[in-house]
Amino acid sequence: MRVFQNLFSPSVQHTLDLIGIFVFAISGALLAVRKNFDVFGIAVLAEVTALGGGLFRDLIIGAVPPAAFTDLGYFVTPLLAALLVFFLHPHVERIQVGVNVFDAAGLGLFCVAGTTKAYEYGLGLTQSVTLGLATAVGGGVLRDVLANEVPSLLRWDRDLYAVPAIVGATLVALCIRYDALTSFTSGLAALTAFVLRLLAMRFHWRAPRAWNRRSTVREE
Amino acid sequence: MRVFQNLFSPSVQHTLDLIGIFVFAISGALLAVRKNFDVFGIAVLAEVTALGGGLFRDLIIGAVPPAAFTDLGYFVTPLLAALLVFFLHPHVERIQVGVNVFDAAGLGLFCVAGTTKAYEYGLGLTQSVTLGLATAVGGGVLRDVLANEVPSLLRWDRDLYAVPAIVGATLVALCIRYDALTSFTSGLAALTAFVLRLLAMRFHWRAPRAWNRRSTVREE
Amino acid sequence: MRVFQNLFSPSVQHTLDLIGIFVFAISGALLAVRKNFDVFGIAVLAEVTALGGGLFRDLIIGAVPPAAFTDLGYFVTPLLAALLVFFLHPHVERIQVGVNVFDAAGLGLFCVAGTTKAYEYGLGLTQSVTLGLATAVGGGVLRDVLANEVPSLLRWDRDLYAVPAIVGATLVALCIRYDALTSFTSGLAALTAFVLRLLAMRFHWRAPRAWNRRSTVREE
Repeated sequence: MRVFQNLFSPSVQHTLDLIGIFVFAISGALLAVRKNFDVFGIAVLAEVTALGGGLFRDLIIGAVPPAAFTDLGYFVTPLLAALLVFFLHPHVERIQVGVNVFDAAGLGLFCVAGTTKAYEYGLGLTQSVTLGLATAVGGGVLRDVLANEVPSLLRWDRDLYAVPAIVGATLVALCIRYDALTSFTSGLAALTAFVLRLLAMRFHWRAPRAWNRRSTVREE
Repeated sequence: MRVFQNLFSPSVQHTLDLIGIFVFAISGALLAVRKNFDVFGIAVLAEVTALGGGLFRDLIIGAVPPAAFTDLGYFVTPLLAALLVFFLHPHVERIQVGVNVFDAAGLGLFCVAGTTKAYEYGLGLTQSVTLGLATAVGGGVLRDVLANEVPSLLRWDRDLYAVPAIVGATLVALCIRYDALTSFTSGLAALTAFVLRLLAMRFHWRAPRAWNRRSTVREE
Repeated sequence: MRVFQNLFSPSVQHTLDLIGIFVFAISGALLAVRKNFDVFGIAVLAEVTALGGGLFRDLIIGAVPPAAFTDLGYFVTPLLAALLVFFLHPHVERIQVGVNVFDAAGLGLFCVAGTTKAYEYGLGLTQSVTLGLATAVGGGVLRDVLANEVPSLLRWDRDLYAVPAIVGATLVALCIRYDALTSFTSGLAALTAFVLRLLAMRFHWRAPRAWNRRSTVREE
C-alpha cells in the first residue's frame, strides 16, 4: 500500500469526511421524505446515500471491512442527519440552496479522497479516477435505485454532476503522476470540483444526448 | 476471528439456516409469480431473496467466497422453494398466513445469526447489529429492487419489519457485551424478534413518517 | 488456485474477452439512448453492462481488485462502444440483428470464461456454473436496474437468454469433472451456448410461467 503521509492531518481529513457524509445523508433523507417513507426508510436512505459510494470503492479495492463499518462516526452521522430531516424537514427544504452547496462540497471532498485511497491500494491512475468518481456519485445512484427512480446522475435533464467530480479526480491523478500531491493541491482539486458544480447549478449546464434521439427501435 | 463455541450445535444451526432460507425463498418466488416472471425468473428471485442478505454481510466482513457459494444446501434449498411455488402457487398463496409466520421466523433466525457472525469477524457491536439487520432484511430489499418495486421495507404502509430484527440483533449484542451469549439467550433473542414481528402483523404496527409530509419541494 | 494452463493462449483469451465486453457495452449504450440519457449516462450504462457480471463474480471469489479495475483495455473498450453509439446510433440500430448475434457470442464466451475462473478460485462445480451464468447475465441485469426497468432476463415475454448460458456453463463443468477441459471443448461449450441463443431468438423460444398465473393474492 502506497500511503501519502500527512496529506491532511488525520483529524482534518476525518472532519472533512464527516461533513461530506452529513450533507449526502441530508439529500438521501429528503428524497425519502418526498417518497413518503417512514422514519426507518429515512434512516436507511440517509445511510445508503452517505456511505454507498465509499462502500463500493472499499469492496473493489479489497479494504474490508469497509470504513463505513469500522468508523462509528461514519455510521452515526447519517442517523443524525435523518433525525434532523425527520423533525425539521420543511426547514431543511427551505434551505435547499444551502443543502445543494454543501452537497457540492461533499462531491469535491469525496472525489479527491476516493481517488487518493484507490491509488494508495495499488490501482492504476485511470482506475483511481474511476473509483474517485464512484465514491462521489455512487451513494446517490444507490439512493435513487432504492427509491425506485431513474438515477438522477444518468438523466439528461439534470445539471452536470459527474463532470465536476471527474475533473477533480483527474486533477488528483495528474498531481500523483507529476509527484505534486500535497494537502494544498488536493484542496485545490476539491475546490475546483466544488466550484464547477456550483457553476453547473447556477447556469444549468447539461451534457448532450445522442444525436437523433427520437428512437423508434423496438426494445429487444 | 472470535468464535463462540457451541452456540448451537453445527447441525442445529445449519437446519435453522435452511429453514430461514426456505421461507425467504418462498416469499421471493411468490413475488415473481405476481410479477408474471417465467420459471427462471422465479428461481432467480427465490435465490436472491433467500441468500442476498447473507451475501452482503459476507462481502462486507470479507468472508469470501460467501457461505451462499460454498454450502450446496444453501443453493439448492431456494430452487426447491421455487419449484414448489411454480407448481403449487395457488395453494402456497392460500396458506399465506403460514408463509408470513415462517417468514417472521426467518427474520428472527437471520438477525441473530448475522449479528453473531459479524462480531466473530471482528466488527464492533454497533456494526454487528447493523449487519444482523442487513442479513435479515437485505434479501427482501434486493428482491424488490430486481422486481422494480419500491422496497417493501422502506414503505410507511407496511407493518413493522425492520424493528423486530433490530431488537433481536440488539439483544444479541447486549448478550455479547455482558458475556452472556449462549444458545439459550440466542434463541431467546430470535424468539423476541419473531414474536414482535407476529404482533406487528396482527396489530398493524407502523412506523411514523416525517411531520408535515405533504412536501411540495421541487425535486432537485 | 487451480489454473488450467494454456486453455487458450493469453492473447486469444484477452481478445475474446474484449469482443464480449464490446458487444455487451453496445447493448447498454443503446438502452441508454432509448431512455434518453445524456452522453455520460450512455458511458455509465455501457461500462456497467459490459463489466458488471465479471465484477460480481470477482467480488464473490475474492479476486480483488477485479479484472475490470486492473486491465485498462476492459475499461476503455466500453467507452469506445459508448462513443460509437453516441455518434452513430441510428446506424447501430439498423444493424440490430448484427448486435444481437454479437451479444449471443458474448453470452457464450462469458459463461465459459466465468465458470472456468470460478473453478480456478476453488469453488465447487455447481457454484462455478452459477457464477458462469452470473458473469454472462449479471451486466444486463445491472443495466436494467439502473435504467429502472424490470430485468429483461426475468420477463416471460423475452426469448430464452439464461438457458443457453446455463447449458454452456454446465458443459464446461462436465468437462472439468471428466478431466476433458481443453481449448477445443471450451470453444465447443461457448459455441453451443451461442447457437442455442441464436435458435431461441429465431424461433422465439420462451420459458413457461407458473400455472394459473392470474393471481389475485394481495401483495403482503
